Amino acid sequence: MEPADILLSVDDVLEEFLTAKAAASDEPYLSYLAGLLREFLSGGKRIRPLLCVTGWRAADGGTDTESVIRVAACLELFHAFALIHDDVMDSSNTRRGRPTAHRALADSRPAGRDPEQADRFGMGAAVLLGDLALVWSDELLHTAGLSAGQLSAVLPLLAEMRTEVMIGQYLDLCATGMLSDDVDATLNVIRYKTAKYTIERPLHIGAAIAGASAEVMAACTAYALPLGEAFQLRDDLLGVYGDPRDTGKSRLDDLREGKNTTLTALALSRADAEQTARLRELMGDPQLGEEGAAVVRAVLDATGAHAAVEAMIDDRLGQALKTLEDSPFTPDATAALRRVARMATVRNS
Amino acid sequence: MEPADILLSVDDVLEEFLTAKAAASDEPYLSYLAGLLREFLSGGKRIRPLLCVTGWRAADGGTDTESVIRVAACLELFHAFALIHDDVMDSSNTRRGRPTAHRALADSRPAGRDPEQADRFGMGAAVLLGDLALVWSDELLHTAGLSAGQLSAVLPLLAEMRTEVMIGQYLDLCATGMLSDDVDATLNVIRYKTAKYTIERPLHIGAAIAGASAEVMAACTAYALPLGEAFQLRDDLLGVYGDPRDTGKSRLDDLREGKNTTLTALALSRADAEQTARLRELMGDPQLGEEGAAVVRAVLDATGAHAAVEAMIDDRLGQALKTLEDSPFTPDATAALRRVARMATVRNS
Repeated sequence: MEPADILLSVDDVLEEFLTAKAAASDEPYLSYLAGLLREFLSGGKRIRPLLCVTGWRAADGGTDTESVIRVAACLELFHAFALIHDDVMDSSNTRRGRPTAHRALADSRPAGRDPEQADRFGMGAAVLLGDLALVWSDELLHTAGLSAGQLSAVLPLLAEMRTEVMIGQYLDLCATGMLSDDVDATLNVIRYKTAKYTIERPLHIGAAIAGASAEVMAACTAYALPLGEAFQLRDDLLGVYGDPRDTGKSRLDDLREGKNTTLTALALSRADAEQTARLRELMGDPQLGEEGAAVVRAVLDATGAHAAVEAMIDDRLGQALKTLEDSPFTPDATAALRRVARMATVRNS
Repeated sequence: MEPADILLSVDDVLEEFLTAKAAASDEPYLSYLAGLLREFLSGGKRIRPLLCVTGWRAADGGTDTESVIRVAACLELFHAFALIHDDVMDSSNTRRGRPTAHRALADSRPAGRDPEQADRFGMGAAVLLGDLALVWSDELLHTAGLSAGQLSAVLPLLAEMRTEVMIGQYLDLCATGMLSDDVDATLNVIRYKTAKYTIERPLHIGAAIAGASAEVMAACTAYALPLGEAFQLRDDLLGVYGDPRDTGKSRLDDLREGKNTTLTALALSRADAEQTARLRELMGDPQLGEEGAAVVRAVLDATGAHAAVEAMIDDRLGQALKTLEDSPFTPDATAALRRVARMATVRNS
């Protein structure tokens, strides 16, 4: 099964599920919310579903892909939940080139509401929309046709994944607006928020459905943790240096929010007094414009932080690829994981 | 098993589960968040766990209560999720006589944050705390020791319950600040948000674990829907007329927020021009004080809306009790449901 086929099958499952949800209720609002989720889901990279199916192939899952595709789709719906809530917490305005859920909802019902009331409605409704994505992701899992044995292998991994992403999100929230030169602390957030959540657990879940051995599970971890770091470090760079036409999101948001990343921590740990003052003055300024952003980028470059993050990405990518040289995975899956590793780290969106 | 014993057993399960969660992680934040949930959970009425166990007894579930108690506890943790997010959406400041989760979290980390940043942190962290309660409620369910047959009877009911409460919440959100004289619309919100969520589904879930017949399930519904309406109508009255020392929450919040309830819809549908103007001017005013609240209460009384809601409660309570006269439940459970009906409707907190 080629990646493109996996993604199409996952999209079909999501489309069918949400269409059925919209049709099943007398409540017109439910069909409206289901429609918002369908829209939100279009345009995602689907990296977690892809890894879930690849994990299943890595453990030689066989040719009947129906259940694993459904579980893969459930991970994408879970991710929609995480992103919708993340955008609420960060007050981000754009995602995937479109208004974020809370912005779209705030703008959808202006009748009789002043702007502040509309914003509050948008925020509350987006929290709910995320909640709905989470409980529906559960429903997808429980209707995936897994055997009792498969389900009991998957549930503890899924529970771990959910708790981990929430720890990561909480650590991130605590660090937001509190710029620090503590590089290790930023790598700890990445470990929870990305390495485990985005790479390791989707692989594990797919592999577990295929009845993977402990050796295969350990090899998933060995590949996933360095790759996940590299993936997030690339994301951090794109948040500051990316082209909004490619990334679909503003490259000012992270700076305005004062997002505490490995990139900024490295810069602060290398900056002289003047550079430190510049960074602390500009980062976290909600009014920061393109001019100020250019100054921040110049400091990130001049301190060598930008180049250091690129070097870290290369290093982690190398580590991840190295684990594949001698892995217990099927040859097919090994080749697929090699492609995923490059796709995750060499990208402009 | 007496109600008090059920509640103690549910509390023990919650306490043990959250203590284990706090201890299981290296991440000190997780133990902090688990502690916040423990605190939040103390002082709840536990009506859903009580009904879940009663549903199981109604269907003659037997003497081994371990699994059903754990499922009952999972409903309480789910309810913590719903309340924490509800308070964020309503920007409520107090709950159960204490600061709401987002307020407590905002106040917990003032270091280096201005008040607006602290509020945003509190809001984001409370969304996450709610998310954590939701995924942990799932974990409680999946470790409840249900058989595959019991689990597959419970899961669709739980999925329905979750979707229903979210529809109710969304309807509520749409109506907030938009006072209306549409009494039926408010009763529709009640149906989803309370009657099904608080009464019907907990009974169904407990009964399903006991392998209830379709007749028992239908009898649960017949009892639950009128009682759920009465329960919420009492809640609406307590929100406006209750004593904060009993209810643990401000009796100004609903009025300041312009909460659109059956009480206010009835008042508007009966009000003359002057009374309508008064209600529309005062309700939804975030600065409303005790004096303004007294004016609103006087209008609610003068229009007869207050008395009409009391009469509706009596009527619904009567309907619910009547279904018990000829129910297929065990005599024990029938007696317990009679007590629950009175407890839910004749109360000051």
